Amino acid sequence: MSIHFLREIENLKKKILAVSSVVEESIARSIAAVIKHDATLARQVAEGDDEINEMEVDVEEECLKILALYQPVAVDLRFVVAVLKINNDLERMGDHAVNIADRAAYLATFPKLDVPPELDEMARRTQTMVKHSLDALVESDTELARQVCAADQEIDQYNRKMHVLIQDQMRSNPDDIDRLLHLLSVSRQLERIADLATNVAEDVIYTVEGTIVRHRVAALDN
Amino acid sequence: MSIHFLREIENLKKKILAVSSVVEESIARSIAAVIKHDATLARQVAEGDDEINEMEVDVEEECLKILALYQPVAVDLRFVVAVLKINNDLERMGDHAVNIADRAAYLATFPKLDVPPELDEMARRTQTMVKHSLDALVESDTELARQVCAADQEIDQYNRKMHVLIQDQMRSNPDDIDRLLHLLSVSRQLERIADLATNVAEDVIYTVEGTIVRHRVAALDN
Repeated sequence: MSIHFLREIENLKKKILAVSSVVEESIARSIAAVIKHDATLARQVAEGDDEINEMEVDVEEECLKILALYQPVAVDLRFVVAVLKINNDLERMGDHAVNIADRAAYLATFPKLDVPPELDEMARRTQTMVKHSLDALVESDTELARQVCAADQEIDQYNRKMHVLIQDQMRSNPDDIDRLLHLLSVSRQLERIADLATNVAEDVIYTVEGTIVRHRVAALDN
Repeated sequence: MSIHFLREIENLKKKILAVSSVVEESIARSIAAVIKHDATLARQVAEGDDEINEMEVDVEEECLKILALYQPVAVDLRFVVAVLKINNDLERMGDHAVNIADRAAYLATFPKLDVPPELDEMARRTQTMVKHSLDALVESDTELARQVCAADQEIDQYNRKMHVLIQDQMRSNPDDIDRLLHLLSVSRQLERIADLATNVAEDVIYTVEGTIVRHRVAALDN
């Protein structure tokens, strides 16, 4: 492949990393909005989603341009197709961050709920998964990608724990059920983000090794 | 483009329609399993997921083959890339059907819950959206695709209604909270399937018209 093609690929890597870093920031803020009971922060996440959407469209156009101009084959073709799919996954993670922020905005209109401290740690680990899945892509690092896949099980465990804790709160305070359902949704959205990061990592492994690790049994995301 | 290319595209259309019809069947069965309290039916859905996964891998390989062999550009390139993305969306719908079936299997181990009759209608409309979004793809029918996008709002309304109904049940029967959360999850999974069908329809509009209708404001999926 030509030097022009390689330059385009480097440029594409930079662009997809930039999308990822905005998405990570968006996840971090949305969770901070829940924990700090902060409606202003929640609004910022919703407003920032336009930027993610524009970046997604830009990356997709870039991929189509590369396919049309350079007509890559074999591993190069797989890489561009992987970026197309991963780009889509990142945009969906951004949507989940907006969903979390919507919950935060709603919860902020009521007195503060007791948020289980596990939520913060769960969010931090989810963000790390997102970051590592993209690092794995740009470095073709299948070892790191496999760590992301393994970390998904921890997030599933956090989600199950949150379910148990929040269900207990529901039974003791039936009047809080509505708000507690919103809090439960936050945990579930994080679990979905972790699933999407795992999809990314699986696509990285496939692109590099040609091994399909998709289609593991999905955990119950209540 | 050559006659070979056109034949490959026709073949690809047949394959993606076949994936869709298996996914639709899987959704129908998973909901029947919930409504009829039928663990056997639920198991069949989980077992059928392997077939969907294999079909997805096959369609993706087919797309990569077409890109590498025929190096399509412009609208042909967009079509193949759209199929790649839609294929991914269909596989995710299949995962949601498995999630619904998992709920059905769990619920079947307890006495039968009162399932709001709206759930059946919601499921039927969601299946129609899936079918229409794929028909829109193979017929390049943007009018039908727009109907799918519009129908998504009805499904969001059904989901909100289910939330209200099930929250009421939770407050009156706190002992049923655990099972009712599973039932609520069924409604939410349907809402996610409808979202994915809407993604498909939006990709169809983009492929045919070059108009981006993605990134509408997502409804709260509790």
